[in-house]
Amino acid sequence: MEIIPNLELIFIIDMLAAVTFAVSGALVASRKGLDILGFMWLAVITGVGGGTMRDLVLDLPVFWIADPAHIIACLITATIMYFVAPTIASRLRQVLWFDALGLALVTVVGTVKGLEADTGPLIAVVMGVTTASVGGIIRDVVGGEQSIIMRQEIYVTAAVAGAVTYISLAAFGLEGIMAATASFLVTFIIRGLAITYNWSLPTRYVSR
Amino acid sequence: MEIIPNLELIFIIDMLAAVTFAVSGALVASRKGLDILGFMWLAVITGVGGGTMRDLVLDLPVFWIADPAHIIACLITATIMYFVAPTIASRLRQVLWFDALGLALVTVVGTVKGLEADTGPLIAVVMGVTTASVGGIIRDVVGGEQSIIMRQEIYVTAAVAGAVTYISLAAFGLEGIMAATASFLVTFIIRGLAITYNWSLPTRYVSR
Amino acid sequence: MEIIPNLELIFIIDMLAAVTFAVSGALVASRKGLDILGFMWLAVITGVGGGTMRDLVLDLPVFWIADPAHIIACLITATIMYFVAPTIASRLRQVLWFDALGLALVTVVGTVKGLEADTGPLIAVVMGVTTASVGGIIRDVVGGEQSIIMRQEIYVTAAVAGAVTYISLAAFGLEGIMAATASFLVTFIIRGLAITYNWSLPTRYVSR
Repeated sequence: MEIIPNLELIFIIDMLAAVTFAVSGALVASRKGLDILGFMWLAVITGVGGGTMRDLVLDLPVFWIADPAHIIACLITATIMYFVAPTIASRLRQVLWFDALGLALVTVVGTVKGLEADTGPLIAVVMGVTTASVGGIIRDVVGGEQSIIMRQEIYVTAAVAGAVTYISLAAFGLEGIMAATASFLVTFIIRGLAITYNWSLPTRYVSR
Repeated sequence: MEIIPNLELIFIIDMLAAVTFAVSGALVASRKGLDILGFMWLAVITGVGGGTMRDLVLDLPVFWIADPAHIIACLITATIMYFVAPTIASRLRQVLWFDALGLALVTVVGTVKGLEADTGPLIAVVMGVTTASVGGIIRDVVGGEQSIIMRQEIYVTAAVAGAVTYISLAAFGLEGIMAATASFLVTFIIRGLAITYNWSLPTRYVSR
Repeated sequence: MEIIPNLELIFIIDMLAAVTFAVSGALVASRKGLDILGFMWLAVITGVGGGTMRDLVLDLPVFWIADPAHIIACLITATIMYFVAPTIASRLRQVLWFDALGLALVTVVGTVKGLEADTGPLIAVVMGVTTASVGGIIRDVVGGEQSIIMRQEIYVTAAVAGAVTYISLAAFGLEGIMAATASFLVTFIIRGLAITYNWSLPTRYVSR
């Protein structure tokens, strides 16, 4: 499997993911009536939480320690959101959408970093999917919201599909940015359709 | 204190613990009506969460990164549980029992790894006990269940007894597998009796 | 920026912070009617949780692994609290105050360690503030209490002010212990006033 290490690509996607999750964190901060530093706090831990866990598990340097760019981006995002959030009609709905964007972005970069760490395709998928959900889980647990991952709409499935897409395309030698874009779109479109149409996979739920 | 490093033993116990906690995670997934990938997700994070925290704190390579065997075991467990869970009458009760099994297994391996890292017996006990509870805490927090560790039945006590058992036997030069089995049994029997008979230590609870 | 590495200072503040957070953890254990080992467990994870996360993210050895002193301090604290806690009239109020003390202590040491790791002042502040809140978050999430950080009184602001105080004084070459004391006082006094007078920054809360 030929993977082109693409540090710049990872940097940019980590940045987009941080901003996206920061928006979702700031929306929860807004729902809780926090002050501007509360917005910043929740934006930062949601924005960089998933990637932090990914780097710790892979024994890589935590991405925002060496370069404060991601933190600065989260802080700017939080400041803007502090003024914009009260004008947004349905913030819970927007949390879902920004979480979906963040999920798609972090799945890509988690998978890429997993592959680069030479852990094999299965672990790369697991890395992509489990760390993709960490930022949102911290946001929901600390913010006292129901975990998005516990909703019955398709969620993990979207991330798995995106991760598998990246690995398959990479196996065929497709370039990093192309595979990354395809992977992002697969996750985001599946999750977006699930939010819009309340799609869910069959469950075997029996209430007891 | 003479401890025989026993990599194979640790591998096997980590595997049993992962499967056991994966079962408890899948039972919670079933209670929440998740789809099959939701089962897998909750089974994996519950199954490997405690050991992951243990390895991070001890600055060891995370055990499932080098070898996907534990992840595969969790995924197979989740798949089987997806079909079996709805036929189980009292799933909350079963969560307690599988959590007890997992607790006993992870206490052993946490203690062994703590000792091998040459951190002294006290830290080994603390490692065994605190990381033993991490998998279950993640499962309960993410799954929106009350933390098992907050129930008033004996819980931490069982793990401490098991960890102390291992360390005492090891200090007398008893072989790894023997000490591990004794330690496992001590934890599991104490916790099992506590579940069965609602045992609790005296508390000094005053409601205010 | 001249920072004098001050290992002894860090050790002592980590110790004070561990004891302080251990008290707050024990108070929550008391509110939940846990037994003495439950007290110890919650005291230990609250006491060393924040510093553990800080050391993991900075890729430093976890502070309580090399030296069990902090763990022993948490265990002694938990034992004393087990007997003292039922005599305390308003334990929730005391949780707030001990959390405030712990917040001020951990903010200082997080900032110092962040600066020593040569991560620049912004990351040092972020390290100080985010890891300062980790111990309390674990305590509240596991103990099933509302996160203190989600209360609308000033909280993060106090920690940021303390961290900025340390970095500013350090930039002017002030000695470690002096800057640490000033930083501690700034955080604790701001947070203490917020608790006493229910201070909050303006929020832009709209209930929807």
